[in-house]
Amino acid sequence: MTEYDAIKEYLAKTLSTKRFIHSENTAKTAEELALIYKVDSKKAYLAGLVHDCTRELDINQQHNMLKALGIEVDELTITTKELIHAFTAEYLIINEFNIHDKEVISAVRFHTTGKENMTLLEKIIFLSDVMEPSRSFPGVDFIRQLARSNIDEALLTAFDSSIRFLLGKRQRIHPNTLLGRNYVLKHFKE
Amino acid sequence: MTEYDAIKEYLAKTLSTKRFIHSENTAKTAEELALIYKVDSKKAYLAGLVHDCTRELDINQQHNMLKALGIEVDELTITTKELIHAFTAEYLIINEFNIHDKEVISAVRFHTTGKENMTLLEKIIFLSDVMEPSRSFPGVDFIRQLARSNIDEALLTAFDSSIRFLLGKRQRIHPNTLLGRNYVLKHFKE
Repeated sequence: MTEYDAIKEYLAKTLSTKRFIHSENTAKTAEELALIYKVDSKKAYLAGLVHDCTRELDINQQHNMLKALGIEVDELTITTKELIHAFTAEYLIINEFNIHDKEVISAVRFHTTGKENMTLLEKIIFLSDVMEPSRSFPGVDFIRQLARSNIDEALLTAFDSSIRFLLGKRQRIHPNTLLGRNYVLKHFKE
Repeated sequence: MTEYDAIKEYLAKTLSTKRFIHSENTAKTAEELALIYKVDSKKAYLAGLVHDCTRELDINQQHNMLKALGIEVDELTITTKELIHAFTAEYLIINEFNIHDKEVISAVRFHTTGKENMTLLEKIIFLSDVMEPSRSFPGVDFIRQLARSNIDEALLTAFDSSIRFLLGKRQRIHPNTLLGRNYVLKHFKE
């Protein structure tokens, strides 16, 4: 028994096999990046493991979780399954897994959009979700390579990739993704 | 003598030939779109003509104009020549051309970035600047075609084109462009 067995058992029961494997992969990738960047690797593994724990829940159920948490989110987030789960995960993180670590919760909360001025742990979870071994899209190998040598360059490339993907699908783009990208570029220049 | 001769004379003296021609072209394109969409075509011509009147001024001179106008803008706008001129144009529009029309000033102000919930005149100036006959970039003919049949589809395509251009150049993207794009997409769906 490891300390993660209870969480894994819960995820195995409630997620599709594909997403369960993705969650384990994200945890392992996050742990690896944490070791490179000298961030708490247990927090990274944990955040990676639970980041998608509410991703497959009905959206109405997720609205109830937000109410229970007392969190208000913007209109785009509340109507988009790809976004809202990052906020509702906190409900299971606290109530099901009994984790109260604010750094872990924040890293999960911004794993889909990013934001301005991210912590290293937030960057690691954002990137691990994008680049874990089962992910396959044009440019993912370049992101994997950059992530191990220059995390901000990897982050910029991942933001660009996400923006291009949503442009191509005629979908709205969350402002935090743009603000996160602008922030990275501004700090490169300074 | 037309009523625009004094403005044209001023622009001919203060702008490069290329930008003077671009200004006249933008005015004519805006007038044409205004007739299609039943917007005041004199306002459209005027806004098109003056939209770039401060585009070639020194940025410090433009900072003084903002102070004189009492306008505060965000950090990205104030440091970017491609953005700040849309705000400083108001200084010449009022003090040199003696135009006080708020619709004209607003159309000039948002001609580079766009924004949420644009008026028809704002959309027309934004698009005329992008698609006037001397402009040449991949996709411009498609924007020209759309602009005459579906202005919001043209606007979306122009926003996408602007975002892709800035992604490719590793430059920051003004949030108003993203918000403008999100707004158009949301209203298509509704």
